[in-house]
Amino acid sequence: MNGHGNSLAFLNSVRYGTQYQNELDTKEAVMRAVQIREFGGPEVLQVYDLPDPDPGPGELLVEVARCGVNFADSLLRDDGYIAPTTLPVIPGCEVVGRAPDGRRVAGMVPSGGYAERVAVPEAHLFDVPDEVDDVEALALLAQGLTAWWLINHTTRVQPGETVVVHAAAGGVGSLAIQLALLSGAGRVIAAAGTPEKRAVAITLGADNAVDPAADDLTAELCAANDGEQIDVVLEMTGGHVTDQSLAALAPLGRLAFYGMASGVEPSSVPPHNLQRRSTTVSGFWLKHALARPELLAKAYAELCSLAANGSLRVIHGGDYGMSLVGRAHEHLRDRRTIGKLVLDPSR
Amino acid sequence: MNGHGNSLAFLNSVRYGTQYQNELDTKEAVMRAVQIREFGGPEVLQVYDLPDPDPGPGELLVEVARCGVNFADSLLRDDGYIAPTTLPVIPGCEVVGRAPDGRRVAGMVPSGGYAERVAVPEAHLFDVPDEVDDVEALALLAQGLTAWWLINHTTRVQPGETVVVHAAAGGVGSLAIQLALLSGAGRVIAAAGTPEKRAVAITLGADNAVDPAADDLTAELCAANDGEQIDVVLEMTGGHVTDQSLAALAPLGRLAFYGMASGVEPSSVPPHNLQRRSTTVSGFWLKHALARPELLAKAYAELCSLAANGSLRVIHGGDYGMSLVGRAHEHLRDRRTIGKLVLDPSR
Repeated sequence: MNGHGNSLAFLNSVRYGTQYQNELDTKEAVMRAVQIREFGGPEVLQVYDLPDPDPGPGELLVEVARCGVNFADSLLRDDGYIAPTTLPVIPGCEVVGRAPDGRRVAGMVPSGGYAERVAVPEAHLFDVPDEVDDVEALALLAQGLTAWWLINHTTRVQPGETVVVHAAAGGVGSLAIQLALLSGAGRVIAAAGTPEKRAVAITLGADNAVDPAADDLTAELCAANDGEQIDVVLEMTGGHVTDQSLAALAPLGRLAFYGMASGVEPSSVPPHNLQRRSTTVSGFWLKHALARPELLAKAYAELCSLAANGSLRVIHGGDYGMSLVGRAHEHLRDRRTIGKLVLDPSR
Repeated sequence: MNGHGNSLAFLNSVRYGTQYQNELDTKEAVMRAVQIREFGGPEVLQVYDLPDPDPGPGELLVEVARCGVNFADSLLRDDGYIAPTTLPVIPGCEVVGRAPDGRRVAGMVPSGGYAERVAVPEAHLFDVPDEVDDVEALALLAQGLTAWWLINHTTRVQPGETVVVHAAAGGVGSLAIQLALLSGAGRVIAAAGTPEKRAVAITLGADNAVDPAADDLTAELCAANDGEQIDVVLEMTGGHVTDQSLAALAPLGRLAFYGMASGVEPSSVPPHNLQRRSTTVSGFWLKHALARPELLAKAYAELCSLAANGSLRVIHGGDYGMSLVGRAHEHLRDRRTIGKLVLDPSR
């Protein structure tokens, strides 16, 4: 439970939800948006005509070109996200489009992204250079900023260190492989559940790739590191994958836990065990990084410039019309996708 | 259990222990040293004549002026340290004295410090400026380097952050208060078990001080921070003090667990809870930092220069003759001491 998340969800339900009927009566401007009005299967993701958002103080109304689809969005549908969801809600936390002054911008919102227009706090609105396309601009938002934060802030990867990236062909993982190498990592070991995903990770620069379903994942990870223990692990799976990755950490090693896609809680960690090996476990949820907008703006500019000069590759995963959002979510939940999925609100 | 610790203890038992009788037969040089030959009460700490250590490759024989006494030393006596102890053993992990070339040096060893002479790896031998006295030189070793590492490496205290220092009048705590302030901490909250110790912490610069025995320590810590949660906690107590300190962490907050003086294990930490608040738990044991001698040398030089220019105060806790080592240990175990305790091997 989280007070901040709840109050954001509440504000959002006021802005986009319960009041919309009144606003429709008195306002002209109407937009298409995906809204969830009850929890359930993919059929609860429906497109409605809703009133344009009314930007509050410090917010700008962005005309959305594309909105990003994230795994976390798919958890809202059956109230499975980290914070509870208040209905009705427009999912979507990231958009790229035009600010009222015509600037091309990318922006982050707690929700409201799957829409033709969205009010974005100026603090979470970043300029997008022309060399970066819409899919790249979106991949570098929630996923890129998460990967950047995990590498440069949470675990502070040092030159020569070995980094294990779980869900290595996913949105965060595919960028984390490349950012770890750009930070001077001596070796990047990718973990991914299919041969195809492992091949993608190798293409992105991973030195080798393992199957996280291995019986003894700890041994598998160390074997992939010439028998040595691991300095840094980026983990978003949960269950035995977290447990066995933690057991593979070298002294002074760090594991960042930023998601639990399997839905299975890892074992709890005795602090005394961390002390015996001088290891660290960090949790990370991007929501908290939004409290440091100046750092995120710096990170986003850095990510854009890496993408623009070809040092950071974004994989395009599919461009869906808004009415096909249910299909996009199902593909994400089934782990069938590789690369960044986006929605086009114009269709 | 720890392989590295065991092998060091083993090497040490070979060097100082089981072979000494043979060496006494064939060698001239003899030194006084405290040795533990069986586990038990303070009476097992006895002074013996033992052969001078024989420095191995990369080691120098240091003529000891003073050796430092640490809480961890007192745990060897009844085999209560993090790593198991192999008998016989000469306790003591830090000395100040003269290198063979006459340089004044301070050095760290896995054991062997309570002696007139000790072989120290050159990598763990640091020059001591004249402005720094023997007690300061020792306080800045195991305790100073631990405080430095916790502040600058494990938790990376940022300007303006609030730092809670437990065992605040202890060897690490008293230096950590000052180093946190030198790193720009906005507020330092000291936790210590007696009014006298809390007064010492305030003298060293802590903004306020709390009793860790408070029924609701989480509320107490936040109250001492104007109702706000805590950014960084340095913890070496264990049990409910760890649990309630962790519960006080702000989003992106970090807790460093570097000891368990109460002997009580804290609760295990679910990684999912860390993610919900983007918090971090790190374990730290100085042994692992010894693998980074260049960083420790830099840290020790920095600590010496802060002590020399008066920015970092060391509290002198008592200078004991070697035969009174049992009493020094008992005072430490009973939490009666404030400041750095040292042994004088010449008496």
